[in-house]
Amino acid sequence: MARLFERVTIAGVGLIGGSLGLAARAAGLVGEIVGLGRGAANLELARARGIVDRYSHDPAEAARDADLLVLAVPVARMAAVAQACAPVLRHGAVVTDVGSVKESVVREVEAVLPPHLAFVGAHPIAGTEESGAAAAFADVFRGARCVLTPSRRSTADAVARVRALWEGVGMRVEALDPSYHDQVLAWVSHLPHALAFSLVNGLLDVDPAMQRFGGPSFRDATRVASSSVDTWTEIFLCNAQLDAVLGAFARTLEALRAAVARRDAAAVRAALARAQGARRDWSGSGA
Amino acid sequence: MARLFERVTIAGVGLIGGSLGLAARAAGLVGEIVGLGRGAANLELARARGIVDRYSHDPAEAARDADLLVLAVPVARMAAVAQACAPVLRHGAVVTDVGSVKESVVREVEAVLPPHLAFVGAHPIAGTEESGAAAAFADVFRGARCVLTPSRRSTADAVARVRALWEGVGMRVEALDPSYHDQVLAWVSHLPHALAFSLVNGLLDVDPAMQRFGGPSFRDATRVASSSVDTWTEIFLCNAQLDAVLGAFARTLEALRAAVARRDAAAVRAALARAQGARRDWSGSGA
Repeated sequence: MARLFERVTIAGVGLIGGSLGLAARAAGLVGEIVGLGRGAANLELARARGIVDRYSHDPAEAARDADLLVLAVPVARMAAVAQACAPVLRHGAVVTDVGSVKESVVREVEAVLPPHLAFVGAHPIAGTEESGAAAAFADVFRGARCVLTPSRRSTADAVARVRALWEGVGMRVEALDPSYHDQVLAWVSHLPHALAFSLVNGLLDVDPAMQRFGGPSFRDATRVASSSVDTWTEIFLCNAQLDAVLGAFARTLEALRAAVARRDAAAVRAALARAQGARRDWSGSGA
Repeated sequence: MARLFERVTIAGVGLIGGSLGLAARAAGLVGEIVGLGRGAANLELARARGIVDRYSHDPAEAARDADLLVLAVPVARMAAVAQACAPVLRHGAVVTDVGSVKESVVREVEAVLPPHLAFVGAHPIAGTEESGAAAAFADVFRGARCVLTPSRRSTADAVARVRALWEGVGMRVEALDPSYHDQVLAWVSHLPHALAFSLVNGLLDVDPAMQRFGGPSFRDATRVASSSVDTWTEIFLCNAQLDAVLGAFARTLEALRAAVARRDAAAVRAALARAQGARRDWSGSGA
């Protein structure tokens, strides 16, 4: 495939940033790859694994003359990193990110970029429970979905090239409005995480010893409660849609509780049948 | 192992009732096994598979002279089946069950048994998504937990023999108070099911198209929403502890929502860390 970018700076060479380096290089999509980060051991490992050609802890050095900057740091730090890199990027360079929330990232990053730089928000919906350059692997993206959130500072050319990058590493790419993206992810990912954390905490409040009776349904319902506390604190605080989604979920659960409390078998049955049908269709869709 | 019961009537030869027949026979714990049920095809299959020696649709025939009656029908029908079988059971016979709720079953079944019969409520916490005699297999119980709920009508001898039966098929048996059992199961199983059904329904209320972005966390959080509507309607309506547990969970989730809404990073982090620690310990315990 034709080369899309000559020099890429990846800020944050973790699971996603590192995997993008591996996959983009393997697909011939990029030229030189430069790592930017704080942890020397992680960056040295990234170089040893061929994820990056070189690295620096200094934005002015790592981002110099790059025509693509990938923000793969925690979302709360993205604007600061973009601002630090902006003065040395090539004129007309593209800035993108891999954050799990988009509305706040788009707003904050766009606010710090000079006019000659384009921004295209992106969320590759992929990953594992692991983290760091050690966990990176090129195939993590294959067949998974990537959402682009074109915004005020997204030029058509920048959107096309960022789309080509993610398609080039095997993702199914589609564009959504940033706030709609955040609402969707609140429902399919952030709320499920909130439920898992709260299920464990609710049980602990009553009697931790009850956990020993947990079987497959408890295991699956709480699996993601073992996820990174830092990552999920940040996602919960950055997704402005989550509050409304938590409220809507609470009302749906309360409707089921009320139907159970008034022993309304028809209403309970209808609620369960509706969910069962949709869930079986979803399984059948191979989504 | 020594034979515990000479003639066992299994009312409801489905996944659990059928598996108990296979496992108890294989372990030499029982003599003749008689099936009681309504579906001729299922009972014929059970006989062909060696789960039962014979079967009948008539309680008076299926339960005659049995010294153990296992209620493996839906919990709402257990008392009626027990009442129909009671007159023909052997004097001093033991009645037990396999229901997922215990407080209502104990109360309702004990109310219909004549004084010479003992009752020992039991809940083998095992199973798969499958149902019917076709899905039965002896190893389903191995290593899983079984809760006994000794009550007013449980003689010491009956409790000892029912315990020996479940231990004999490989289960880890312990005794709990019936209402505490229901509270425990509400937390580790019934609430997780309610969350799964409600997560799917809440998403459907907003936009069914969002499902296509569901990844591993959505898949795990909603897996049991594809469970049997009949079974779960009945469990929700029969577990008198569920209402309080749903209320307690709602308060825990609301506390997290409120912390997010006031951007209280320390409170969010503390909640997530508490759940993460407990969930990782649980995984590590091999529970």
